[in-house]
Amino acid sequence: MIVSARTRPPHPVLIEPIVRSALEEDLGRAGDITSDLTIPADTIACAKLVARSAGTISGLIAAERVFALVDPKLAYRPAKHDGETVAAGAIIAVIDGHARSVLTAERVALNFVGHLSGIATATHAFVEAVAGTRARIVCTRKTTPGLRILEKYAVRCGGGFNHRFGLDDAVLIKDNHLAACGGIKPAIERARAGLGHMAKIELEVDTLTQLEEALSLGVDTILLDNMGIDDLKRAGELARGRATLEASGSVTLATVRAIAETGVDYISSGAITHSAPSLDVALDF
Amino acid sequence: MIVSARTRPPHPVLIEPIVRSALEEDLGRAGDITSDLTIPADTIACAKLVARSAGTISGLIAAERVFALVDPKLAYRPAKHDGETVAAGAIIAVIDGHARSVLTAERVALNFVGHLSGIATATHAFVEAVAGTRARIVCTRKTTPGLRILEKYAVRCGGGFNHRFGLDDAVLIKDNHLAACGGIKPAIERARAGLGHMAKIELEVDTLTQLEEALSLGVDTILLDNMGIDDLKRAGELARGRATLEASGSVTLATVRAIAETGVDYISSGAITHSAPSLDVALDF
Amino acid sequence: MIVSARTRPPHPVLIEPIVRSALEEDLGRAGDITSDLTIPADTIACAKLVARSAGTISGLIAAERVFALVDPKLAYRPAKHDGETVAAGAIIAVIDGHARSVLTAERVALNFVGHLSGIATATHAFVEAVAGTRARIVCTRKTTPGLRILEKYAVRCGGGFNHRFGLDDAVLIKDNHLAACGGIKPAIERARAGLGHMAKIELEVDTLTQLEEALSLGVDTILLDNMGIDDLKRAGELARGRATLEASGSVTLATVRAIAETGVDYISSGAITHSAPSLDVALDF
Amino acid sequence: MIVSARTRPPHPVLIEPIVRSALEEDLGRAGDITSDLTIPADTIACAKLVARSAGTISGLIAAERVFALVDPKLAYRPAKHDGETVAAGAIIAVIDGHARSVLTAERVALNFVGHLSGIATATHAFVEAVAGTRARIVCTRKTTPGLRILEKYAVRCGGGFNHRFGLDDAVLIKDNHLAACGGIKPAIERARAGLGHMAKIELEVDTLTQLEEALSLGVDTILLDNMGIDDLKRAGELARGRATLEASGSVTLATVRAIAETGVDYISSGAITHSAPSLDVALDF
Amino acid sequence: MIVSARTRPPHPVLIEPIVRSALEEDLGRAGDITSDLTIPADTIACAKLVARSAGTISGLIAAERVFALVDPKLAYRPAKHDGETVAAGAIIAVIDGHARSVLTAERVALNFVGHLSGIATATHAFVEAVAGTRARIVCTRKTTPGLRILEKYAVRCGGGFNHRFGLDDAVLIKDNHLAACGGIKPAIERARAGLGHMAKIELEVDTLTQLEEALSLGVDTILLDNMGIDDLKRAGELARGRATLEASGSVTLATVRAIAETGVDYISSGAITHSAPSLDVALDF
Amino acid sequence: MIVSARTRPPHPVLIEPIVRSALEEDLGRAGDITSDLTIPADTIACAKLVARSAGTISGLIAAERVFALVDPKLAYRPAKHDGETVAAGAIIAVIDGHARSVLTAERVALNFVGHLSGIATATHAFVEAVAGTRARIVCTRKTTPGLRILEKYAVRCGGGFNHRFGLDDAVLIKDNHLAACGGIKPAIERARAGLGHMAKIELEVDTLTQLEEALSLGVDTILLDNMGIDDLKRAGELARGRATLEASGSVTLATVRAIAETGVDYISSGAITHSAPSLDVALDF
Repeated sequence: MIVSARTRPPHPVLIEPIVRSALEEDLGRAGDITSDLTIPADTIACAKLVARSAGTISGLIAAERVFALVDPKLAYRPAKHDGETVAAGAIIAVIDGHARSVLTAERVALNFVGHLSGIATATHAFVEAVAGTRARIVCTRKTTPGLRILEKYAVRCGGGFNHRFGLDDAVLIKDNHLAACGGIKPAIERARAGLGHMAKIELEVDTLTQLEEALSLGVDTILLDNMGIDDLKRAGELARGRATLEASGSVTLATVRAIAETGVDYISSGAITHSAPSLDVALDF
Repeated sequence: MIVSARTRPPHPVLIEPIVRSALEEDLGRAGDITSDLTIPADTIACAKLVARSAGTISGLIAAERVFALVDPKLAYRPAKHDGETVAAGAIIAVIDGHARSVLTAERVALNFVGHLSGIATATHAFVEAVAGTRARIVCTRKTTPGLRILEKYAVRCGGGFNHRFGLDDAVLIKDNHLAACGGIKPAIERARAGLGHMAKIELEVDTLTQLEEALSLGVDTILLDNMGIDDLKRAGELARGRATLEASGSVTLATVRAIAETGVDYISSGAITHSAPSLDVALDF
Repeated sequence: MIVSARTRPPHPVLIEPIVRSALEEDLGRAGDITSDLTIPADTIACAKLVARSAGTISGLIAAERVFALVDPKLAYRPAKHDGETVAAGAIIAVIDGHARSVLTAERVALNFVGHLSGIATATHAFVEAVAGTRARIVCTRKTTPGLRILEKYAVRCGGGFNHRFGLDDAVLIKDNHLAACGGIKPAIERARAGLGHMAKIELEVDTLTQLEEALSLGVDTILLDNMGIDDLKRAGELARGRATLEASGSVTLATVRAIAETGVDYISSGAITHSAPSLDVALDF
Repeated sequence: MIVSARTRPPHPVLIEPIVRSALEEDLGRAGDITSDLTIPADTIACAKLVARSAGTISGLIAAERVFALVDPKLAYRPAKHDGETVAAGAIIAVIDGHARSVLTAERVALNFVGHLSGIATATHAFVEAVAGTRARIVCTRKTTPGLRILEKYAVRCGGGFNHRFGLDDAVLIKDNHLAACGGIKPAIERARAGLGHMAKIELEVDTLTQLEEALSLGVDTILLDNMGIDDLKRAGELARGRATLEASGSVTLATVRAIAETGVDYISSGAITHSAPSLDVALDF
Repeated sequence: MIVSARTRPPHPVLIEPIVRSALEEDLGRAGDITSDLTIPADTIACAKLVARSAGTISGLIAAERVFALVDPKLAYRPAKHDGETVAAGAIIAVIDGHARSVLTAERVALNFVGHLSGIATATHAFVEAVAGTRARIVCTRKTTPGLRILEKYAVRCGGGFNHRFGLDDAVLIKDNHLAACGGIKPAIERARAGLGHMAKIELEVDTLTQLEEALSLGVDTILLDNMGIDDLKRAGELARGRATLEASGSVTLATVRAIAETGVDYISSGAITHSAPSLDVALDF
Repeated sequence: MIVSARTRPPHPVLIEPIVRSALEEDLGRAGDITSDLTIPADTIACAKLVARSAGTISGLIAAERVFALVDPKLAYRPAKHDGETVAAGAIIAVIDGHARSVLTAERVALNFVGHLSGIATATHAFVEAVAGTRARIVCTRKTTPGLRILEKYAVRCGGGFNHRFGLDDAVLIKDNHLAACGGIKPAIERARAGLGHMAKIELEVDTLTQLEEALSLGVDTILLDNMGIDDLKRAGELARGRATLEASGSVTLATVRAIAETGVDYISSGAITHSAPSLDVALDF
């Protein structure tokens, strides 16, 4: 397996229960009655995993595990790897073995690869759009329940970076928190009083006035939510060298370049995980 | 809870582990450090679950369980129910209770509602498009791993019907099966020889010749894959009264009406589950 | 492994957690203290799995997994396979390896084989009794909690067929449903309005009058509950070519032939799963 | 709940996962499609749990939990309790609430009660047969995988006593152990060398010669396997006051009284757990 | 429940499975046979949870859940809360209800409170020892497998702060990493190239030379491992205002004050979690 | 693996889920970000597991499984085995393979070995202290939640013996039971009335008067709680040949020899499991 530090797959120990649970969901109680009843037990097949559309691949790490769990004797030979961008028609992998096993595994494997490649492809488009700027594309916690570690991985496959993995690995103070606790200053002070030294604090601001208060308090990362291009530029001037800036809100392929050119460090998008259409992948005999 | 036979939510015993697992995924080990550290324990909040875009709602049944698991003392008061179509800005529910609890539950609840309402909304658009024809919209097994029962429910919320829930609850013989077992006749015969009497058999055909063979064998349901409008019409004439017909392949909002008007009984779409963009829902204090 | 389409074992992914859980149940916390304390670690044994009574074998697929989980180095060599009918005294399999491991696995392996072979043997007796008629023997949902997929498999090993695997894979409208919903007609109409196209509907009737109503509504499968032989014959005449007929209620080895000769398509029995005595199998050194 | 020390139900924390798993097994993915589609959501039912045959009841503790998990609003009112012997036709419990919920729970609840009452009834027959002798009826580890704690409970409900719950809570040295470790003396010595002081040692013997060796070594409990009545009597004379005696092997209702009258302390039977026919219980509206 | 931001208990959703698993471990298969057999079912008891030694309390949040899971009818009335320091003999809580239930829950509840209060007490001693300095006491990943979130909580109860919760929520580059990747510079550069913006980087150094390289690279937090007091002072002078400093290695109650007075920001100790003796707590009737 | 009957490791089927769960706890969602980001994927390491202090080793059986689960290609070569006593500096095992994998596994493996070797070492000290007397050292149920089978194993590795594994494998009647059930006689009678023949009964007494009552009732094992040396001697004289005696309460290394010399059969200590400091083990490259 070719593994760059950038794509960095989730540890197999974490992937295994997700894949197993997906298989159980599809097998139900009676298993693959179609293949078992119609195909002789000893029929051998050679199947190709093919991309029907161009895109960036992700999820092979799960698909490979699907085939292995369904039948350890299936041979999975990769032609492409997670993180690679392929043309329509590209062969991604070849799977040889009992036809029943290949067909039993087919849909679950494709569901992983289609869904995660869709996210990688959407991310890649944003990353390409901001190429040459300092901005990095990051995802959010707006992920599909149960699949967060794989979707965060798909974002990395597409060239993006990961924001928080959950509620517990960084502090992100939003407008609702400020409303409930009485303002920026008490929020920051309380967070610092209780946190250990290895967790970072990010603060969401809507206005330049809030930004200035945040900077004066020495907040490390500031999330500029739904600001216009002019405000983002002004924010960049105010914060340069004093804090990391992240822009969010209504980020689309049409607007992301302009946002990046304001000089922000990070641009976050929920759409790359929650609204990316599936990539069309298929299994051909 | 208002429950029509049409929407029919999954049984709570089945939803509970999915919701619990989604919460564990977001809480990680240290929990909601932002809310716990910045907001006093006794602060009370009143939050509104709001649709930012128009759409058909689904997933409240999971969201309500998220709030209850995070804090049994939270009061969840519904204003809309799964299966209702709402305008942008509509209040869906009101949640009262400890601010920390509301914020801890927020993202997981929204992820369920956004994702499932996206599917219901996409389904509803297809259902509306074929209104007045005999065609019913059905989903496929192209679902997100781990969420099948909820996604199938979201399709029902949008007015669609469900195809197989898994590999085991019906026989669907596709081209790969035919290739591996030597043709339509042996496939049908073998399936009938091994199946009990409560499972149906569907056969995928690509040509009218195959259709005729299937009809002569008395197959109940025939999947017409990627056929043109003219072939679909001809298929309808051939099969009328002899078999149920399902059309699939490259079904879009632009083409679905014409397909429905050929007289097929069912039109299946993978896109309504695997590529529906999330509906924009938010929690406002 | 010899696998006919008829016996069709449950997928290993589904068997594994059942076997593992059975082992944990027997090992408790301290494990096999008898074998570990009394037998030297390097003692080798050659054990024979033997049928003490004649019968039809089922459950080897689970037993083999028990031995493998207890000790991957145990060699399991099959002499008989699930679905085979054996004489008293027949050697079913030979297991070689560490004596401690063989003895640790013994009881759990035998519990699976004894219980499931008991079901296969009971089923086989019914199947033999109706040989030459059109009737197929089918099981019900009256199974032992937690073992349904294995017990349904045991029925197949005995030559029977499977009815529903659960509440969700077919509609079976019984007298209690009719009482609660106001009659046959509304029940059938409501089921048809909400069901997808791949699920079948079966209706239980107690009288020929109900049967006629069911036939007039085009119900596919009709369950004739506790009818006498004469009524079953009359039902067959009424329904021939219009619906599949299943007979149930007080089916015994003494009565099943006469029922089959009335011409019904299926005869269902709860007793083959819930009251079959265990087959006597043992492990001899 | 009336709980005698004799029946002593398993702790609810241990029953809960077994019941939950049985429900998931029956609900599958789509749930109770028959009840949900045919019966209006607000229909109320009053159902009676009835014994169709006479017998000793067990498993209500699980059935009650089934109803509560399916719908916490169902009212379960017991008329009989686990451990009571009832006549055919006796009402065991009344359940009120939504008809859909009652029907969804019905089969799983009945499967527990039928299976466990079958074991309690079989046990009770043995217990009655030895009434007036010193012999106690005990079960073995020949139980259905996954249900041991409930089946051991059913034995107590029938008036029997429990032998080991697993491989780990007592030492039971059998012929295979002796074969593998070189005889009675080394086996007993090794067990004593490694065991803590709260675990008992039992030794299986086939002959009076072995019995004498066991007695000379001070073994506390001796299992007399497959001995004739005369040998059992002689064994009783030899062992009186020196060891506890248990008889096993080919114990039937026809032979158990004679065995008990030889004066043995315990008689163990695998058949009461692995081959007891289900008791016929039903749910009537 | 009194909850300060400092002590901040783990979310109940995360505690529940740990407590349930601990109960299952103690109940085994047959449950609390001593209490069930010797005590009448209706005997009521009033038990006091008492500290036999002085210390800082932690783990009541788990103990309360133990009592509730064993018997929801038990009344748990707290007299002390997690995070409070108590004298020997102090009553911590009073539990009323069925005697059987109290005794069934006793040992598991005490095991949680004894173990976690031991950690809180050890932490508290270190925190007291450095009072008045800038140094905060932090724990490590040297925790008992399966109990990390509770042990981290116990450290907070004792007044300490938490370091990383796992391998994934911060980067901590140690000597072995440097050995494997070729030095400080490539390690820091690679980490920055792949990390998102919300994860911090800490570097372990053994010498002042390494410290200077780290400072020149702008590393935020530097772990000074096993340095003498003079080197720690010198490190403080070099790093003041440029990086956060953490001292570790051979920290004992005898040495911690001197280390703190060198001006480091954090002092980490594995011993407060892995070697703290249990606090003596008991349940008195 | 060298396995003596004395150390007798828990069965792998029971260890696997504990190890897996410990790994998941440390990997969190994002895995070992430090190693994955800083170390090239193909870097090979050779690591030594070393004892920094002298002690008795336990837990290698879990550590070996940690390395195998993290990376099946890691080579684990043991130099010492569980149950061996080693000097400070001793090499325990050598692990070769990918540096990333070794470092990912390091902490979890060390946490098992450090914790369990701490218990084995503490036990061994007690065992050595009573060498030459008849007394055996036994542990209690005062173990760390979730780790009982491993901690009981560690006690065996240290030369100790195991008392009950849980509430269910022996009866131990304590003062609270006597208070709740009305005295020694009814407690013993009730226990005997309900128990099967393979479970032992132990009674805790505080005075010689209670001891005499227990002896007159034929109780097999008597726990002498917190008695002075003179009373223990007198108890030994009274009970010799009539019952097994266990001493408990305030047992320390300073007092254990004197207690053993009173002639008791068993001495139980909670401290060897709940308060043993971790043994210092490390992984050196």
